[in-house]
Amino acid sequence: MRRSMTSAAPLFSHPVRIYWEDTDAGGLVYYANYLKFFERARTEWLRELGFGQQRLRDEQGLMWVVADANVRYLQPARLDDELDVTVALSAAARATLTLAQSALRGPTILADGRITLACVAAGSLRPRRIPQAILDALASSTSQT
Amino acid sequence: MRRSMTSAAPLFSHPVRIYWEDTDAGGLVYYANYLKFFERARTEWLRELGFGQQRLRDEQGLMWVVADANVRYLQPARLDDELDVTVALSAAARATLTLAQSALRGPTILADGRITLACVAAGSLRPRRIPQAILDALASSTSQT
Amino acid sequence: MRRSMTSAAPLFSHPVRIYWEDTDAGGLVYYANYLKFFERARTEWLRELGFGQQRLRDEQGLMWVVADANVRYLQPARLDDELDVTVALSAAARATLTLAQSALRGPTILADGRITLACVAAGSLRPRRIPQAILDALASSTSQT
Amino acid sequence: MRRSMTSAAPLFSHPVRIYWEDTDAGGLVYYANYLKFFERARTEWLRELGFGQQRLRDEQGLMWVVADANVRYLQPARLDDELDVTVALSAAARATLTLAQSALRGPTILADGRITLACVAAGSLRPRRIPQAILDALASSTSQT
Repeated sequence: MRRSMTSAAPLFSHPVRIYWEDTDAGGLVYYANYLKFFERARTEWLRELGFGQQRLRDEQGLMWVVADANVRYLQPARLDDELDVTVALSAAARATLTLAQSALRGPTILADGRITLACVAAGSLRPRRIPQAILDALASSTSQT
Repeated sequence: MRRSMTSAAPLFSHPVRIYWEDTDAGGLVYYANYLKFFERARTEWLRELGFGQQRLRDEQGLMWVVADANVRYLQPARLDDELDVTVALSAAARATLTLAQSALRGPTILADGRITLACVAAGSLRPRRIPQAILDALASSTSQT
Repeated sequence: MRRSMTSAAPLFSHPVRIYWEDTDAGGLVYYANYLKFFERARTEWLRELGFGQQRLRDEQGLMWVVADANVRYLQPARLDDELDVTVALSAAARATLTLAQSALRGPTILADGRITLACVAAGSLRPRRIPQAILDALASSTSQT
Repeated sequence: MRRSMTSAAPLFSHPVRIYWEDTDAGGLVYYANYLKFFERARTEWLRELGFGQQRLRDEQGLMWVVADANVRYLQPARLDDELDVTVALSAAARATLTLAQSALRGPTILADGRITLACVAAGSLRPRRIPQAILDALASSTSQT
């Protein structure tokens, strides 16, 4: 299940356009907003795997929370830029997923992230085992290479 | 209970400092963010009246939603500016409050708003009568002039 | 040049997906974020007309600022919703454009806005005449009905 | 100049109140917003040291950009919470500062961050040596223990 970030894992990619709301007075995209872009891409990735988060909560009482976020900022993005934001599964454990995410403009990596998601009960926020159906979907999606 | 916006109503004022997150690449505060500042000031105003919103929800199952927002942008705010954001009750009805709000830098009005809040049931979002205790507190706070 | 909002003007529409970042603890989309959605749609509308804002600034030293924003909130949007955000020119004057904008989920209008944009010099923020090429493009786009 | 994060470094602390804008439909503070809180506290810390960022840019053409951000999310924050956000200098190099930052509610650490700031030329974004006056101010502020 564990996959190295340098493997030929099938990358999920989600387009993000930069609007005024994303920039700051330095003329660049504000640093916190890359975490929004990463979250949008993760949400679309989970949706494509068949696991919309509203349904996960309604049907199973589960929610993903971010336990850990690491971002390296390499090159700035600016107004009107079109980015691709990628998601690759880096590691899956009983109650956590670790994802490698990047924001790219064409071939240039602008920001690189490693995000750990924890599966928790929506009410108590206690750690919960990731549903087997999700782990199976992740395993089969990453073994398609 | 109805007060004209030009009356000598006692103004509630809440300080807001402008950070990078509030600005955009035009070098000015992004227009949507004034609605955030207005909401912070309203929240502090309600808290000072003794009606924190989390408690309102927990104890009475009620929530405020914005039904209508009108903002005129007169002068821009910039990074590091210190604003005062004011709240004055403009009108109170059975299920709605209309507020006059401004963002000022010193004596200069930067933005002017008229915001209508509706009192709703937290679950169904159906309109609900504003609790009498809140109306009483508003009436006594505005009659202190 | 002036067009009624109820005319059969060709509506520009831009899709917006609701992510966690857009919602608040009330479970609904936070009210200020509709102004972000409206701005995204306006930006795409201007881009489609051939007037990207970065280029407008680089080539002509001009910038759009919002002078006035009015929003009526009719129905809430929630996580995972897919909205369409529309733009229609309501009025064009020498230095301002007034737009009618809506956020819809399917046929249901969730929020309705009237936004006035002012054309200003990027440095001084002084009002400037809207470039004739833009007015021409607007006129021809609205006369295609 | 290098200080361990567990040393008795004089902590700079900045209060942050949680508003609706900070929360999401999960009922908790959205994960990206801790980076906003960290940035507000850094800005106030630099201001107190005498180095407001607008002045740094106007007078010396310099700007801070975040090169690296690492956040561990330990406990959630909620609406109405009052947090303290701390800043401690962890390491200073020629062109970068590394800061240890935390968001606390009372004695409880909610989130822990390690943020690396790079000093760059405002125009080219090329790395620049941190002005000696800033390094001196940092050294004297941390040696006061």
